[in-house]
Amino acid sequence: MGAKTMAKDVKYTTWVENEVGIQGVAGSLDGELAVTVSSPLKPVAGTNPEQLIGLSLATCLNATLQAEEKRHGLLHESVVRVKVEFGPDEPGYQFWLTAYVKIPQVDRATGAAMLATAEQRCPVAKLLAGSANVQVQLVDEFPEAEA
Amino acid sequence: MGAKTMAKDVKYTTWVENEVGIQGVAGSLDGELAVTVSSPLKPVAGTNPEQLIGLSLATCLNATLQAEEKRHGLLHESVVRVKVEFGPDEPGYQFWLTAYVKIPQVDRATGAAMLATAEQRCPVAKLLAGSANVQVQLVDEFPEAEA
Repeated sequence: MGAKTMAKDVKYTTWVENEVGIQGVAGSLDGELAVTVSSPLKPVAGTNPEQLIGLSLATCLNATLQAEEKRHGLLHESVVRVKVEFGPDEPGYQFWLTAYVKIPQVDRATGAAMLATAEQRCPVAKLLAGSANVQVQLVDEFPEAEA
Repeated sequence: MGAKTMAKDVKYTTWVENEVGIQGVAGSLDGELAVTVSSPLKPVAGTNPEQLIGLSLATCLNATLQAEEKRHGLLHESVVRVKVEFGPDEPGYQFWLTAYVKIPQVDRATGAAMLATAEQRCPVAKLLAGSANVQVQLVDEFPEAEA
């Protein structure tokens, strides 16, 4: 959307690479991110694309909420927890992402307004906005993190 | 798309959380992913949502290509390098993602067909498919990774 209405004004560029496929070490070319990845369906230690995209959304959305808190003169208390599920699709596979958001220091209406603003400003929320598999919910408590 | 035509059949569930906002440690509740995040615009060590979503796409797409290589009886040689750019949007900010893909052991037509299949099967590529800010390109060589 922005790409159509604004000139592209790049403030930061970073590069990441995966050479190994599903098992091994991958990360950013600047060395700031280096992780072992593995299949979530095998008993091998490591993270995976599910956790990486979930944490990207959680961090981007919570950083954006932190800016909204500051704009409202509030201390930072928001927390974003994301559930990522994996399963078959036709063809291939699919993820489902549900972001649960707590903004405990404000009433529900204020929290809902802050979250709506954050969703409209957060780059990762925007990238995922076209998918029916992605949801964002304001909650008082997180659901049980069952496996 | 799949959500509309298939019953949801979850094979793996994971949870991630960001409590700190833009600066601090965040990760998965199972402990497999734990990283320090920081603002890409500040001289503070750490990764960020840009690198996390880029590596999620790079890993998912390359793991899917690895399966395609296996289906073709080929050894795994594909590499996915993703450039992530950050800049202003109206409102807020936006990312641009460009995935550069090398499949060096096959001719260009075969590589293009394998990549097209992988894009249709990879969950992260599907989540991002609705965004005009995301592109995937088959290349013989990666572009210079300038900052």
